[in-house]
Amino acid sequence: MHQEQFGGVEAGGTKFICAVGTGPDGLTDIKTFDTTTPEETLGHTVSFFRRHSDLTAVGIGSFGPLDPDPSSASFGYITSTPKVGWANTDFAGRLRSELGVRVAFDTDVNAAALGEHRWGAATGLDTFIYLTVGTGVGGGGLCRGRRLRGLVHPEMGHLRVPRAAGDTFRGVCPYHGDCLEGMTSGPAVRARSGLPPDELEPDHPAWTFQVHYLSMALVNYICVLSPERVILGGGVMNQRHLFPRIRERVQLLLNGYIQTASILDAIESYIVPPLLGNRSGVLGAIALAQEACEPAD
Amino acid sequence: MHQEQFGGVEAGGTKFICAVGTGPDGLTDIKTFDTTTPEETLGHTVSFFRRHSDLTAVGIGSFGPLDPDPSSASFGYITSTPKVGWANTDFAGRLRSELGVRVAFDTDVNAAALGEHRWGAATGLDTFIYLTVGTGVGGGGLCRGRRLRGLVHPEMGHLRVPRAAGDTFRGVCPYHGDCLEGMTSGPAVRARSGLPPDELEPDHPAWTFQVHYLSMALVNYICVLSPERVILGGGVMNQRHLFPRIRERVQLLLNGYIQTASILDAIESYIVPPLLGNRSGVLGAIALAQEACEPAD
Repeated sequence: MHQEQFGGVEAGGTKFICAVGTGPDGLTDIKTFDTTTPEETLGHTVSFFRRHSDLTAVGIGSFGPLDPDPSSASFGYITSTPKVGWANTDFAGRLRSELGVRVAFDTDVNAAALGEHRWGAATGLDTFIYLTVGTGVGGGGLCRGRRLRGLVHPEMGHLRVPRAAGDTFRGVCPYHGDCLEGMTSGPAVRARSGLPPDELEPDHPAWTFQVHYLSMALVNYICVLSPERVILGGGVMNQRHLFPRIRERVQLLLNGYIQTASILDAIESYIVPPLLGNRSGVLGAIALAQEACEPAD
Repeated sequence: MHQEQFGGVEAGGTKFICAVGTGPDGLTDIKTFDTTTPEETLGHTVSFFRRHSDLTAVGIGSFGPLDPDPSSASFGYITSTPKVGWANTDFAGRLRSELGVRVAFDTDVNAAALGEHRWGAATGLDTFIYLTVGTGVGGGGLCRGRRLRGLVHPEMGHLRVPRAAGDTFRGVCPYHGDCLEGMTSGPAVRARSGLPPDELEPDHPAWTFQVHYLSMALVNYICVLSPERVILGGGVMNQRHLFPRIRERVQLLLNGYIQTASILDAIESYIVPPLLGNRSGVLGAIALAQEACEPAD
């Protein structure tokens, strides 16, 4: 029997990854290109998918801010982004009209979360968070089986958390200074230490601050959403020495208040890296496309 | 035609409120009594509802921590509460067996949120937060139409937020010191100022700190959940002068990052008091009972 084929777009501010297939073991085509103007980049995207005449649907996990609400007039648009040329770009609408297929659209992090839910570290969970710590910091996830969405979409990277004792670093967020993204993104680590994250030794003092801020943020996500698991991805989290330190600090900060085995006894499987690695995003976009073709629950 | 009657229990650490009816304009019986031992207090509760032979279901919105997951073995229990005598109390199970009706069970704040959703300040919204600031601080709400729940239930009062400049108050939370509850609950305001909240003049410096911490917390809730509205209830929020100050501070802290009219232009209807006042809780418990008898969506 012929198996349905789905397209996925991981649309980042620096590069786009487009793929076709059915899941982690069934990618039949994949291509990466730089993010330039919307005209050129969406042109490449459309051309890529036109090579596949048998697509059932395409999913997009995009940088934002964007409009993820299917009932909204600007659904499928990248909205107020500071990225030059991309504000008010009808991303999903263009793919839908040029490719003639159903198009699903959400944030890059909600897509990655959905990918991890279908094939990775969040299978079988209804409520969890996927946080990426890289060029920026962002989070998505599911709450009782539904992708996080409300007034707009979460902006988990812009949480305010208490400063670490003795920390004089001002943070790099142009909007908020020392919000989570301002203190823990790759550019923040570099601004603080003078080196890119992957060149910093595990005992560099910058990591002590990194552990502080990420742990505070995780405590806050846990207090607001009560996730069944927290997945930490993105380039900065490739520093795997951060995981045991963050787990220990989260336990300390919660101080036994939330009495569940997941946090008290099994935190190694509560705060985890993504299982799909750097493919969470594009596979998640394919998962978005598949979900759009399934009956609603 | 005979209208179905529902029971509701607002179970607080200090007092229980039990009511029977169909909604804000249809309460046929209501009674308040002190929270003492589980034996005595649940006995009073059962006796109250036994006077009503025509109940379809009873809803409970309870203090916690508790188990709100219907698929769990300890569903309906108050679990690890420090309140003497109440740990591991099968609350919902006792009412179900003694009354012979369906019993719905969730946190006091999720119940209050549901009440505001059905009859109050959150009608028509899918994703919103209800925060109560009183003897404790707690939050509940809906995310895309479903009551917040995950690993356990949210503990929104225990968020960590940046300290205000010059603030030396250590906070009163026995677990976390200066978490949100530790800094903004009624007892915290009293410990800081020497006076109960309702005796403090609006220009007392304690309110400046109160505005700081609550605004920081609201910014964090907005970043994590993207609620369509935030309802602030509880005894401390009877100080209505706090609302305009919190709204202004939230706008300042977000600094235009979330570009939606709700926050930029209409924040008066974005951060609001409950419409059901001090009846949110018990009416919400009735709403829980009603929801349990409706077909699932």
